[in-house]
Amino acid sequence: MNETENKSILRVELGERGYDILVGEGLLARAGLLMKPVLAQPRVIIVTDDNVAPLYLDALRGALDGEGINHSGIILPAGESTKDFGHFQELTEGLLEAKAERDTTLVALGGGVIGDITGFAAAVTLRGLPFIQIPTTLLAQVDSSVGGKTGINSSFGKNLIGAFHQPRLVLADLGTLDTLARRELLAGYAEVVKYGLIDRPDFFSWLEKDGPRLLDGDSQCRRHAVLTSCAAKAAIVAADEHEKGRRALLNLGHTFGHALEAETGYGGELAHGEAVAIGMVMAFDLSVRLGFCPEADADRIRAHLRSVGLPTDLSALKTPSWTADGLLAHMARDKKVKDGAMTFILARGIGRAFITRDVPEKGILDLLQTALA
Amino acid sequence: MNETENKSILRVELGERGYDILVGEGLLARAGLLMKPVLAQPRVIIVTDDNVAPLYLDALRGALDGEGINHSGIILPAGESTKDFGHFQELTEGLLEAKAERDTTLVALGGGVIGDITGFAAAVTLRGLPFIQIPTTLLAQVDSSVGGKTGINSSFGKNLIGAFHQPRLVLADLGTLDTLARRELLAGYAEVVKYGLIDRPDFFSWLEKDGPRLLDGDSQCRRHAVLTSCAAKAAIVAADEHEKGRRALLNLGHTFGHALEAETGYGGELAHGEAVAIGMVMAFDLSVRLGFCPEADADRIRAHLRSVGLPTDLSALKTPSWTADGLLAHMARDKKVKDGAMTFILARGIGRAFITRDVPEKGILDLLQTALA
Repeated sequence: MNETENKSILRVELGERGYDILVGEGLLARAGLLMKPVLAQPRVIIVTDDNVAPLYLDALRGALDGEGINHSGIILPAGESTKDFGHFQELTEGLLEAKAERDTTLVALGGGVIGDITGFAAAVTLRGLPFIQIPTTLLAQVDSSVGGKTGINSSFGKNLIGAFHQPRLVLADLGTLDTLARRELLAGYAEVVKYGLIDRPDFFSWLEKDGPRLLDGDSQCRRHAVLTSCAAKAAIVAADEHEKGRRALLNLGHTFGHALEAETGYGGELAHGEAVAIGMVMAFDLSVRLGFCPEADADRIRAHLRSVGLPTDLSALKTPSWTADGLLAHMARDKKVKDGAMTFILARGIGRAFITRDVPEKGILDLLQTALA
Repeated sequence: MNETENKSILRVELGERGYDILVGEGLLARAGLLMKPVLAQPRVIIVTDDNVAPLYLDALRGALDGEGINHSGIILPAGESTKDFGHFQELTEGLLEAKAERDTTLVALGGGVIGDITGFAAAVTLRGLPFIQIPTTLLAQVDSSVGGKTGINSSFGKNLIGAFHQPRLVLADLGTLDTLARRELLAGYAEVVKYGLIDRPDFFSWLEKDGPRLLDGDSQCRRHAVLTSCAAKAAIVAADEHEKGRRALLNLGHTFGHALEAETGYGGELAHGEAVAIGMVMAFDLSVRLGFCPEADADRIRAHLRSVGLPTDLSALKTPSWTADGLLAHMARDKKVKDGAMTFILARGIGRAFITRDVPEKGILDLLQTALA
């Protein structure tokens, strides 16, 4: 890691597809200068949403003007429901209408939804445009903006249509976290906790102690958490870009979580990070049931997530129409299914996650039935 | 080239993305045996159209059954208008409904439309599935099934949304050409001629002599033409998979041709190959006007295309609403535009094509105005 002025630089080591993640304060105001070295032509198209545009679009435009970078913008509606085919078509047609060329860089200014749909549009418009991520939520800064997974949702599940397409640069301006509602900050925090649970037990201990300060806006804590999360993700992505193996660890809590999101219909009822929080608890509960993990570790996770205000069970969500079989059917549509068997991320304890395809269906059904009881 | 039994094998040399093109008679009946070595699981989903299905779907199913390969099928409407967002969504949702997994191979059974949309669906469903091409038209056998360009059309132009995604295998069964209408055969023939014009002048001379026999169904001529075309394309693709340079030669006639297709609205009025035939003549006419190419070469091309029954000018197409500016606007939306300048494939003579971005707009407008006069 390279520390200069008030920003830190992490490198995602992917050879000719490698790129920098810049983390710091005030990056948006210097965005033109910072992105200039990776632009193939001095022109970008900014994609953002109607929540983020009033907050940061003018600042970004000003920064681009200051460096003589030509720009136009496309503003999509905010929310997970934007990640559908209809908006995807609207976005790609908008890019063509704006006369995007193969050297025109797209800039995704926003949270995970904007990053995912913009990255996918970049992957397939004119068979591939360069793009830059400027994540403005904690979730996007620590997870979705890094690693090149892009995509949209299908009626059959989340992110089922997409591409691996790495950004040229990630600018994580910590100042943008100031405007997040507590609930949105918490949703991102679930993904921060995930890195501790996968393979960084000391980081989880640090979060138990300093997580609340981070959530209350302490800038040192925030920077440490974002940098540690990005470093954890960058290391895994560099080792396994296309998820042939190890990268699947990043799905801890996501197989369960995606099923919950599918069941609730991607509305505002359940944020992605909230679904992941519940999903991680379920993954550890399943690990305990199957005899892999001490119960005390699952309890510790549940206690920490609860203490900061994240959901840890289905009680607030489930309706009488939810069944264990229905949730299982959603899980079976996951991208990681192979020869009909689902892939699960389980754990031998905090910081000791592992990938397995050998989970008996009965164990999963029992867990789901208990969760729904 | 490796000749065994009644098939020839060409290799597209792309390292770990390399694959074989099999050309011969009776390949469909042996498709199960031939594709088995490249299947990651003994299961495929066949994508075809309602013209091709009654002709060849049963034969393919039988060949798969014979090798114990599980299969299901998705049948799309025939025609260029299928390559749109709506059908693309329908196809990907159909794949998910059929419970496609990352190791499930898609099989594109049909012409260029089916190959392009299936390849693109393979590129982005679950972020990437393997696929096999079984081209059943001359155009698909000599051009679109080889090289990994996949995609759909936008209202702004042809193939503007897509991905580079190489097939695992191409099975070109020459017997399927027997069922093609003369007009469809001719459309593919235009792409065959293209390889002669790009860099194989002897092949063009052979076509002047034996092209009519090929079109009348002579199987030796057919095989020679398909093999020579595939070998020409494979060599260019191996040298420049993602069209950073030399591969653009394959667009000879296409910048003009795509504009004509966009103007006619991708209906049945103008087949892609017909547009390419007119486009190639325009490219040579422009080369003559700019002083690169002897007029005799352009005349020879026009004479040959006319002699077999391909269109060579706009007289049968244009309506009073067509303008040179309108056609130019379509051309400016081409994927090869860079810093506002269009890329053209011009020629110093038959078999001597070259890539240039230095064509004065006035020269193009003059040519278009003459063509529309």
